[in-house]
Amino acid sequence: MRINGRDYRTIWLDSDGRRVHVIDQTGLPHRFETRTLASCEDAAEAIRTMTVRGAPLIGVTGAYGVALAAWSDPSDAAIESAHAALLATRPTAVNLRWALDRLRALLLAAPVSARAGLAYAEAAKIAEEDVAACQAIGRFGAELIHKARCDDGPINILTHCNAGWLATVDWGTALAPIYTAARQGAPIHVWVDETRPRNQGASLTAFELLGEEVPHTIVADNAGGHLMQHGLVDLVIVGSDRTTRAGDVCNKIGTYLKALAAHDNGVPFYVALPSSTVDWRIADGVRDIPIEERSAREVTHISGRGADGAPIEIQLTPDGSAARNFGFDVTPSRFVTGLITERGVCAATEEGLRGLFPDLGG
Amino acid sequence: MRINGRDYRTIWLDSDGRRVHVIDQTGLPHRFETRTLASCEDAAEAIRTMTVRGAPLIGVTGAYGVALAAWSDPSDAAIESAHAALLATRPTAVNLRWALDRLRALLLAAPVSARAGLAYAEAAKIAEEDVAACQAIGRFGAELIHKARCDDGPINILTHCNAGWLATVDWGTALAPIYTAARQGAPIHVWVDETRPRNQGASLTAFELLGEEVPHTIVADNAGGHLMQHGLVDLVIVGSDRTTRAGDVCNKIGTYLKALAAHDNGVPFYVALPSSTVDWRIADGVRDIPIEERSAREVTHISGRGADGAPIEIQLTPDGSAARNFGFDVTPSRFVTGLITERGVCAATEEGLRGLFPDLGG
Repeated sequence: MRINGRDYRTIWLDSDGRRVHVIDQTGLPHRFETRTLASCEDAAEAIRTMTVRGAPLIGVTGAYGVALAAWSDPSDAAIESAHAALLATRPTAVNLRWALDRLRALLLAAPVSARAGLAYAEAAKIAEEDVAACQAIGRFGAELIHKARCDDGPINILTHCNAGWLATVDWGTALAPIYTAARQGAPIHVWVDETRPRNQGASLTAFELLGEEVPHTIVADNAGGHLMQHGLVDLVIVGSDRTTRAGDVCNKIGTYLKALAAHDNGVPFYVALPSSTVDWRIADGVRDIPIEERSAREVTHISGRGADGAPIEIQLTPDGSAARNFGFDVTPSRFVTGLITERGVCAATEEGLRGLFPDLGG
Repeated sequence: MRINGRDYRTIWLDSDGRRVHVIDQTGLPHRFETRTLASCEDAAEAIRTMTVRGAPLIGVTGAYGVALAAWSDPSDAAIESAHAALLATRPTAVNLRWALDRLRALLLAAPVSARAGLAYAEAAKIAEEDVAACQAIGRFGAELIHKARCDDGPINILTHCNAGWLATVDWGTALAPIYTAARQGAPIHVWVDETRPRNQGASLTAFELLGEEVPHTIVADNAGGHLMQHGLVDLVIVGSDRTTRAGDVCNKIGTYLKALAAHDNGVPFYVALPSSTVDWRIADGVRDIPIEERSAREVTHISGRGADGAPIEIQLTPDGSAARNFGFDVTPSRFVTGLITERGVCAATEEGLRGLFPDLGG
C-alpha cells in the first residue's frame, strides 16, 4: 500500500534477488525507515526486535530467513540451525513455526545445489499466498461496506488495534475491506481506537490510513460506546489473533467491549480473518484460550515523540502502584455479526465456518 | 485522607484563619505540593489552572474565594466583583455557581462589618456539608462492599476515572465506600482503570489508594471486559457528573462500556453520587445531555514523568491524523444496579430517587 504516495509492501527482495528489505516498524508513526536483511541472523534480529510484527509478516520474514541461510550454506546442518534460530525469536508464533517447517521440509528433501533457489521461490510463494488471502478478504468485506451506506454521508467504520497491511505483506485483514472499498470510491471515514496500552491504532493504523489517504479520526478506546449510541458508527471491523471453530474471537484487549457496545446499539460487528487463524480444536474461547499477560511497563510507561522530534519514554503512573497488562480478550460469537474470510463471509458459528472450509478442521 | 501517612483535606484554612491552603493537583501523582491562596485572585487562578478540580472542591474553593475578597473589602461592589471573577473561571460548573450565589445572597443581606466573618463561616459550612455527604455515601456503599464478599479472597472492585477525595473536600464519592470498608477491615483490591485520555485513574485514583494503603492494580481501560469475564471483578463503583431523574448516569467517557461488560457478566454496577448531581429536569440522558468535546490534544499528546523526574509532554499520533475527544458518556439506567447517595442506596429509577429525595426535584 502507499506511504507518501509510493507503493510499498512490508517485505520485498532487493534487485540482487538475495537480500531482503523490510519496513522498520519500531519507529512508526514518527520515523519511516527501511532495513536490509543480508543474513539469517539479520532476519532473526528483525523478528526479535519487532522491526517486523504481525503474524503473517513474521511467517514470511522467517521463510526469507531460511532462504538467506540456504544462500550462504545449503547444508542440512545449516538449514536445521536456521530453523532453530528463527523459531527461538518468537516461540509462540504459530505462523512462524508453520512457515519454517514448510521451508525445512521442502529443502531437506531437495538436492543441496537446488536449495537456495527453492527457498527463495517458496518464501515468495508464502508471501503471495498471504497477499491473495488479504485481497480476497478485502473484496468480500468491501461488499459489506457498500451495503452499510444508508445516506449520502460518509460510511463510518470503527476499528480496534492494527489489523492492517503492516501486519501482513500487503492489504491487511480488517483494513483490507476499507482500502478496497475506498479505492472503489466509497466515501469512508474510520474511527481509529487508540488501543492502549501499545497504541497500535493511534500509531500504525493511523499511519496506514494517512498513506492511503482514507479520512480517519483517532479516539480514546473509551469513546466507542458514545459514538455508537449517537449513530456515528455504521459498522465495526476488527481482526482476530485466534478464532475458535464456534466463532469466538480472540483479539486485542478491548475488542470485546466494542462488540458489547455494537450489540447494544444494533451496529454490525464484523471480524476479518484468514482461515489460518481458526483453531479447529476449540469451541469455547473464553474458557479455553489462555490470555497472554505482557509486561506491566507497557501500562506504567508510554513512548512517543518529544518536542525535539526524538523518541522518548515517560512514566504515567505513581511509583508503588502495581499494573497488569492482559494482551487479548475473547469476544463470544453471539456478539459477532459475521466473519470475513478469504473464501467469503459466514456466520460466526461452527456451521458457518465448516460451510466455507469443509476441507479444514478434520 | 492520608498521603504518606499524614491526614489531609484538599482545602483547609491557615492557622491565621484567613489564608486558604490547597493541594496542587496539577503535579500529581509525580509531585505533591500545596499552594497558599491569599486573595480572591489566587482562588480564581487555582480554579482556572486546575490546581483544584472536581465539582465539589471547585464550589468550596469559590466560596473561600468570596471570603478572601470580603476579608480585604466587604463592600457590595467588591463582593459582586469577586462573584463575577470566580464564576468566569469555570462558567459551566454547576456547583461553583451554586456556592457563589449562596455566598453572595448571604453577604449582601448582612451588615458590612459582619460580612468577612459570615463568609468564612459559610464557606466552612459548605465544606462540612460536602464531607458529611461523602461520609454518608461511604457508609451506605461500604455495606454493599461487605455483602459482595463471596469467599475468603479479596473483594475486587473496579472503578473508572477519579471520583475520590481529591475531587471533593474529603472521602470522595465512588471511593468513599472503598475507604470506609477498608478502614472497617474489608480485604479490598481495586482495579483502577487508567481512564484515557487524561488518565485520572492511573494518576489521581492510584495516588489516593497508595496514600490510604488500599491494594490496587492499574489496568488499561480496555481490560475491564476480560477481567469481568473471568470472575476477577466482584462489583463496579463509579461516580457521576450528572444523573437524570430516571437514573441515567453521565460520567467520564468509557463508563458505559464498563456497565455493558458488568451487565453481560452479572457483575453489580453501582454509581455513587451526592443528590446535588441529580438533574430533575431530564429523564433521557442519551438524548438530552449534551456531551462536552474537549481539546484533541488530550488524545494526540500525553504528559508524564521523564527519566530525569521532570514533567514532560510527548506526541503519540502521526502528524496529519485528526483526533476527537468526547469527555463523557451516558450509561442508561437499565445497566445500573443501584445508586449510592447520601441518604441511602436506591434503584436507578425515578421512583427510587423520589423515594429517597421527596423534598427535591419539584
